[in-house]
Amino acid sequence: MFYHVKELQYNAKPERPDPVYAKKLQEILGGQFGEMTVMMQYLFQGFNCRGEKKYRDMILDIGTEEIAHVEMIATMIAHLLDGAPAKEQEEAAKDPVVEAVLGGMNPQHMIVSGLGATPTDSAGYPWNSRYMISSGNLLADFRANLNAESQGRLQVVRLYESTSDPGVRDMLSFLIARDKMHQNQWMAAIEELEQQQSAVVPSTFPKNLEKQEVAYSFMNFSKGTESEKGSWAHGPAMDGQGEFEYIENPEAMGQIPDLTQPPNYVHGTPTPGQMPPGTEGAEYEQGNMDQGPLN
Amino acid sequence: MFYHVKELQYNAKPERPDPVYAKKLQEILGGQFGEMTVMMQYLFQGFNCRGEKKYRDMILDIGTEEIAHVEMIATMIAHLLDGAPAKEQEEAAKDPVVEAVLGGMNPQHMIVSGLGATPTDSAGYPWNSRYMISSGNLLADFRANLNAESQGRLQVVRLYESTSDPGVRDMLSFLIARDKMHQNQWMAAIEELEQQQSAVVPSTFPKNLEKQEVAYSFMNFSKGTESEKGSWAHGPAMDGQGEFEYIENPEAMGQIPDLTQPPNYVHGTPTPGQMPPGTEGAEYEQGNMDQGPLN
Amino acid sequence: MFYHVKELQYNAKPERPDPVYAKKLQEILGGQFGEMTVMMQYLFQGFNCRGEKKYRDMILDIGTEEIAHVEMIATMIAHLLDGAPAKEQEEAAKDPVVEAVLGGMNPQHMIVSGLGATPTDSAGYPWNSRYMISSGNLLADFRANLNAESQGRLQVVRLYESTSDPGVRDMLSFLIARDKMHQNQWMAAIEELEQQQSAVVPSTFPKNLEKQEVAYSFMNFSKGTESEKGSWAHGPAMDGQGEFEYIENPEAMGQIPDLTQPPNYVHGTPTPGQMPPGTEGAEYEQGNMDQGPLN
Amino acid sequence: MFYHVKELQYNAKPERPDPVYAKKLQEILGGQFGEMTVMMQYLFQGFNCRGEKKYRDMILDIGTEEIAHVEMIATMIAHLLDGAPAKEQEEAAKDPVVEAVLGGMNPQHMIVSGLGATPTDSAGYPWNSRYMISSGNLLADFRANLNAESQGRLQVVRLYESTSDPGVRDMLSFLIARDKMHQNQWMAAIEELEQQQSAVVPSTFPKNLEKQEVAYSFMNFSKGTESEKGSWAHGPAMDGQGEFEYIENPEAMGQIPDLTQPPNYVHGTPTPGQMPPGTEGAEYEQGNMDQGPLN
Amino acid sequence: MFYHVKELQYNAKPERPDPVYAKKLQEILGGQFGEMTVMMQYLFQGFNCRGEKKYRDMILDIGTEEIAHVEMIATMIAHLLDGAPAKEQEEAAKDPVVEAVLGGMNPQHMIVSGLGATPTDSAGYPWNSRYMISSGNLLADFRANLNAESQGRLQVVRLYESTSDPGVRDMLSFLIARDKMHQNQWMAAIEELEQQQSAVVPSTFPKNLEKQEVAYSFMNFSKGTESEKGSWAHGPAMDGQGEFEYIENPEAMGQIPDLTQPPNYVHGTPTPGQMPPGTEGAEYEQGNMDQGPLN
Amino acid sequence: MFYHVKELQYNAKPERPDPVYAKKLQEILGGQFGEMTVMMQYLFQGFNCRGEKKYRDMILDIGTEEIAHVEMIATMIAHLLDGAPAKEQEEAAKDPVVEAVLGGMNPQHMIVSGLGATPTDSAGYPWNSRYMISSGNLLADFRANLNAESQGRLQVVRLYESTSDPGVRDMLSFLIARDKMHQNQWMAAIEELEQQQSAVVPSTFPKNLEKQEVAYSFMNFSKGTESEKGSWAHGPAMDGQGEFEYIENPEAMGQIPDLTQPPNYVHGTPTPGQMPPGTEGAEYEQGNMDQGPLN
Repeated sequence: MFYHVKELQYNAKPERPDPVYAKKLQEILGGQFGEMTVMMQYLFQGFNCRGEKKYRDMILDIGTEEIAHVEMIATMIAHLLDGAPAKEQEEAAKDPVVEAVLGGMNPQHMIVSGLGATPTDSAGYPWNSRYMISSGNLLADFRANLNAESQGRLQVVRLYESTSDPGVRDMLSFLIARDKMHQNQWMAAIEELEQQQSAVVPSTFPKNLEKQEVAYSFMNFSKGTESEKGSWAHGPAMDGQGEFEYIENPEAMGQIPDLTQPPNYVHGTPTPGQMPPGTEGAEYEQGNMDQGPLN
Repeated sequence: MFYHVKELQYNAKPERPDPVYAKKLQEILGGQFGEMTVMMQYLFQGFNCRGEKKYRDMILDIGTEEIAHVEMIATMIAHLLDGAPAKEQEEAAKDPVVEAVLGGMNPQHMIVSGLGATPTDSAGYPWNSRYMISSGNLLADFRANLNAESQGRLQVVRLYESTSDPGVRDMLSFLIARDKMHQNQWMAAIEELEQQQSAVVPSTFPKNLEKQEVAYSFMNFSKGTESEKGSWAHGPAMDGQGEFEYIENPEAMGQIPDLTQPPNYVHGTPTPGQMPPGTEGAEYEQGNMDQGPLN
Repeated sequence: MFYHVKELQYNAKPERPDPVYAKKLQEILGGQFGEMTVMMQYLFQGFNCRGEKKYRDMILDIGTEEIAHVEMIATMIAHLLDGAPAKEQEEAAKDPVVEAVLGGMNPQHMIVSGLGATPTDSAGYPWNSRYMISSGNLLADFRANLNAESQGRLQVVRLYESTSDPGVRDMLSFLIARDKMHQNQWMAAIEELEQQQSAVVPSTFPKNLEKQEVAYSFMNFSKGTESEKGSWAHGPAMDGQGEFEYIENPEAMGQIPDLTQPPNYVHGTPTPGQMPPGTEGAEYEQGNMDQGPLN
Repeated sequence: MFYHVKELQYNAKPERPDPVYAKKLQEILGGQFGEMTVMMQYLFQGFNCRGEKKYRDMILDIGTEEIAHVEMIATMIAHLLDGAPAKEQEEAAKDPVVEAVLGGMNPQHMIVSGLGATPTDSAGYPWNSRYMISSGNLLADFRANLNAESQGRLQVVRLYESTSDPGVRDMLSFLIARDKMHQNQWMAAIEELEQQQSAVVPSTFPKNLEKQEVAYSFMNFSKGTESEKGSWAHGPAMDGQGEFEYIENPEAMGQIPDLTQPPNYVHGTPTPGQMPPGTEGAEYEQGNMDQGPLN
Repeated sequence: MFYHVKELQYNAKPERPDPVYAKKLQEILGGQFGEMTVMMQYLFQGFNCRGEKKYRDMILDIGTEEIAHVEMIATMIAHLLDGAPAKEQEEAAKDPVVEAVLGGMNPQHMIVSGLGATPTDSAGYPWNSRYMISSGNLLADFRANLNAESQGRLQVVRLYESTSDPGVRDMLSFLIARDKMHQNQWMAAIEELEQQQSAVVPSTFPKNLEKQEVAYSFMNFSKGTESEKGSWAHGPAMDGQGEFEYIENPEAMGQIPDLTQPPNYVHGTPTPGQMPPGTEGAEYEQGNMDQGPLN
Repeated sequence: MFYHVKELQYNAKPERPDPVYAKKLQEILGGQFGEMTVMMQYLFQGFNCRGEKKYRDMILDIGTEEIAHVEMIATMIAHLLDGAPAKEQEEAAKDPVVEAVLGGMNPQHMIVSGLGATPTDSAGYPWNSRYMISSGNLLADFRANLNAESQGRLQVVRLYESTSDPGVRDMLSFLIARDKMHQNQWMAAIEELEQQQSAVVPSTFPKNLEKQEVAYSFMNFSKGTESEKGSWAHGPAMDGQGEFEYIENPEAMGQIPDLTQPPNYVHGTPTPGQMPPGTEGAEYEQGNMDQGPLN
């Protein structure tokens, strides 16, 4: 169960309105790697957690913090939208600043949300839950979390570069620091789990049931071998259980596919030479009954 | 530019049809972490790559391999759908096996694709490109790739557990091995980049511009302190540049939000006591003209 | 900012697992009118609230409660999935109960979430934020909220009817009661606002600027006049400012549309008789330059 | 069955083209609460109606009218797009008016629809049918309808404020009046149904099966009690069957969740201390066979 | 403007309920090529039509008919859902017929729509407007229409094969005939337009501006030349303005891509060797100011 | 299986950056009829092909070419984004060119992809697989392909008209030529199949099972008969098996729908007069048990 306090986790007030920037800031609220994603991802991972208690507690701590981040950014966006102009285009075109604002705003910030934040990204695309994952395997999920915090911090930094408003930058500097902590946190948790299990997810599938011949081979599927110069091409593999090898010219190991004709009731492409039966219903129906469900 | 050979990368033929399993197998074809995702993710990362040539080449090698994985799984699904029954429900209900098959199939495998694979997941949900990421920062993206290969291998293993068909298991054992290689590959590439830069993405944002006070603090937002027992709560942080601290009772550091009233032309909630102007159009319009665009 | 306690708001433990029912229960977690919708809807309405403080506080109280409802239902679903069978189809078909379970499960509960709740509805469709609204006008939004609680309670009741598990029914009886409270709550808040303003949203648009002739007319667009028998056809209108009238044979009041030909650079349908210019590039290009951007 | 007449229900011709406004106007055509939504919502409610004939007739009358509204707005948008410039950006940048137009247009109005209306909202997002509801319970659905007409009229009014074109304003003044009628109409129908049943949806669920203790309690989940000042906190409830009470410090009534470990074949997080079996395939496989489907 | 009559265009009553078939039938109501698609596609093409009056009239005639098809199929689905069982799973599993029904139903037909049709396809996926097209070029759009009627009739036929209910088959035999007419109709209209213009869309782009060398070449991008045996490989092209040629070994005609390094403020992958500036904020910030917006 | 070569199929380098045009160009990369659509459509049609070998080979040849088109356009977009400004809005507003660029860019090209192409259309909407079709009937699918190449070429031509950059126009002139070839190719393949079967898809459904009376009738559902002037209204039908007829006043041929009341456990609208049972739980529950599953 949850409780709310009215104070924000950190300040979220710009020095001046900027409706165009409000549109951009939506990316880290409702985007693929925005705060709504990590909030929902951590809450579901916590609710579904079947592992040790300390993991469940830790995941829900950070999930609860992320609700506060959604609150902060939504508040900031509402402030940035204060006083957005609604003037008509013709007049606006005479005033370059007004026009610039109108052209760069998300029209839904006026028409739909009435100067409030929307649960969408900077392109106006709504958040959806396929952005998040809760797989029941903590090592897999902590990698998802590390990825989300990496992509997310990258986007916050790019947004920092796009404004000089001291209030906005102050809030972003807080988020940039928290995302650094969160990257560190997931790296620590990943290391802990990798030491208990092994580095490959899932660690519990028996080795003898996987195709060993190709489990450590880098396959060069393009002309040229620049890809040979990386640490993934030679030397011991990261899981400590094999040796990388570089296959310069990988060959196909499988058959040429040969699908059978579908049954008549699928009405696939008729074989040429076979008379199209459309004109002779009676015979067709008769023939069909022997082969399929038409009756 | 790309070329095709008719042979599959590996065998993709089941011993017998199984239309219900075909539906499940769709998850690793068109699901959030299926082969379509890694194929498109790697191709876009490669096409957009502005880094060293070896990375671009490596990414496109694996992207090209993933097209072949899409081909293999699609072929397998088409084989599994061979001879799917189309009989009507009433009759089917009399034959438990037929009925079980009909109840468990994705109806679109019959009606829409005519016994072919569909670009959807095991719930019938279509693939969309918000599953993938290409951020322009390779360390961020390699973490996305490691995550995708971890979630993907977990799902392949679960599908391996759900069938005993030797042909299907043979193909899955190949994919399980390739996904092990790909996890190893991205881990190697990540290590390489982390050593050149630092472990936090992006590594190029100046430290003095982020809120240092909260950059290494674990905040305990729930009652109870089980979360203190992990490696993320105390000791040196993973980036080697700070020390974790555990904040047992984190306090709000921000203001109570106080949004201003919107301009009249937004038609937000009218302030109580202010007479609703709807009945006196003329005066309203007059007053409004002073404040907003209605004219 | 938010805090978490480990206890659930109410019990969420079934007497026995039921993976098929778990799939159905998803509707009130991640469906159009599920708990994720009201949670996000209320949180955004609260964060964006520019009205009186008591409304903001009230909205966030209930929004915070809804996070706890998400937690309860997710927990219940995880319990219901305990021990879901993963057996292959052929064997399952021999055991009607196992088969029934496998046929009726959402396969992603096994493959993707590893026996955890997913942020989707009972058809497996992911939650998206276009389900919710925060418009900046509280009367409009409270009607959205009353609707959501009405549709939601209806769905919970239908789910109550579909199970006899005492644990599940216990939790649902709690939600059914809370949804009754929430319907009552929004009705009370709506009445309060309607008395301050008027019943039509928005109440602040001047009456003389709307087309009065059609502001209270019921138009009968079909053969037959059964629709005349309702309270919407005659008598005083609900806003107390007009009288309903019934137009038995509504006539078109507008023009026949007549769109102009598009400019050449749009490459719309060429006018017949006008020679297709494709074969004479030079002349075409010449002519086009006079009219459009091709140059 | 339906018939068409060529005249529009009302005029839909602007005084002059305005491609930027065309983009905004899309909101009330293909947006969450646009005419496509009410059109499809009413048609489906009518087609599915199992209640009294007068409701079915009434719903289909208004559904049929909404098709005409889609027609009017689509026509208006096509007119507004007349003569949209296609000039390249560099030249455009020299002419502020052209540039303003190009920057603010939806590029798909040129590239995809060739100066025609698109079935999308003002952010370019396509209409989808999860915007609408037809639940089989008329009281629930009429609340959905009242909400849609309230949100819709609010958006039309905001669009009225954003233009001074007399032709556009004329059409919008018609829609604003019709939406007033439709709000009145649904309020009348709701009142009728509430008097026959009761105010809480569904009215047919037995009271003794819901958790009475919490059916009229407002729970204050935040610090501070501003929310106590509303009509929802004390006094008789709106359904006339209970009394509101204000719970200042709501306590958790449920257990601390404790999920069981998943079966092995799910490959969840392995318990620490339990040796990772990946390296000893034979034993693992043996052990696994006892517990799960791997065989 | 539109009018409604209460009679259906054709009968839509099954002999007996069949909730499982109701789920399948949804495909031709709300699927990619269902009646909602052609209805909206034709209505928008008509509303946007800038060509000859006869086309606009014809398109709207068929668009209006399609609304009636939506009505028929929705009605049929509601009938098929009559008396769907809601019993719990455990009991159902004892009765194979009930269980088969429950396992094969779309749960939303019970929980969400209360035994009514839903605006979704047979996988439960909601209709969205990206299924349809209205491009402003009639030849292009008539090809879209011919495709939609071809895919649609194929699906109706497959559904005909999956039932033996005489009432359902009666309605489908009507739709199969109408789809035959509609295919014929679009073929006739296409032929008319192709004769006025030419066969390639758009016919108005000047030939000398397209890369003539590759305008009639079939490129064989795979090993093996089976593709040479078709009518597309040799002989006169269909537009009568060129000759097909078969390129057995197509060569790349373009450069190797070489993207420049992004500016610093993008925070892409840092060049190795370049010291990561994160630890020396002051200098970094200084340097950055010279190159980008960070300031 | 697939191989990659580093050279592009054709040049893809603009003369100068143009981030606004980059946004528009996305339409033919990730739009409804962009290269991702034809690439995935052809690959799936090829993988699923159960017809003659020459068709499979041909489809996969063109599918493989389309991967190269995705590569070319993605590369072009990355070049166009080079040097996109990130300056803040206020300063930008002082410089019309910079401002025009910022207002017209897709913000995700900076924030999300770091100056790389995104898998979205020109409105920023992500690609999804419901854009494509693979039906198992080649005639149906080749019509889908002809449509896709027609819509696609129309869009490329419109984009050609919107730029004067010689590098961009050079690449587009290549694509315009290839799309001409592809239209010709699918027309040739369609003609081949139509001659083997017949012109109506599917050709294998027996004529006597379809409602012959309406199989060649044009129905005029609107006032006025302009639609009679087309080739679809009179004369021999295109399939050579019937004669078009024009029905000026089509009549309804079906019944008035009359749906039965739903069972109680659906909780639909209660019949008026029937006392609302909510207040008397015991009796209700008793009564309900006779009719439905509540127990």
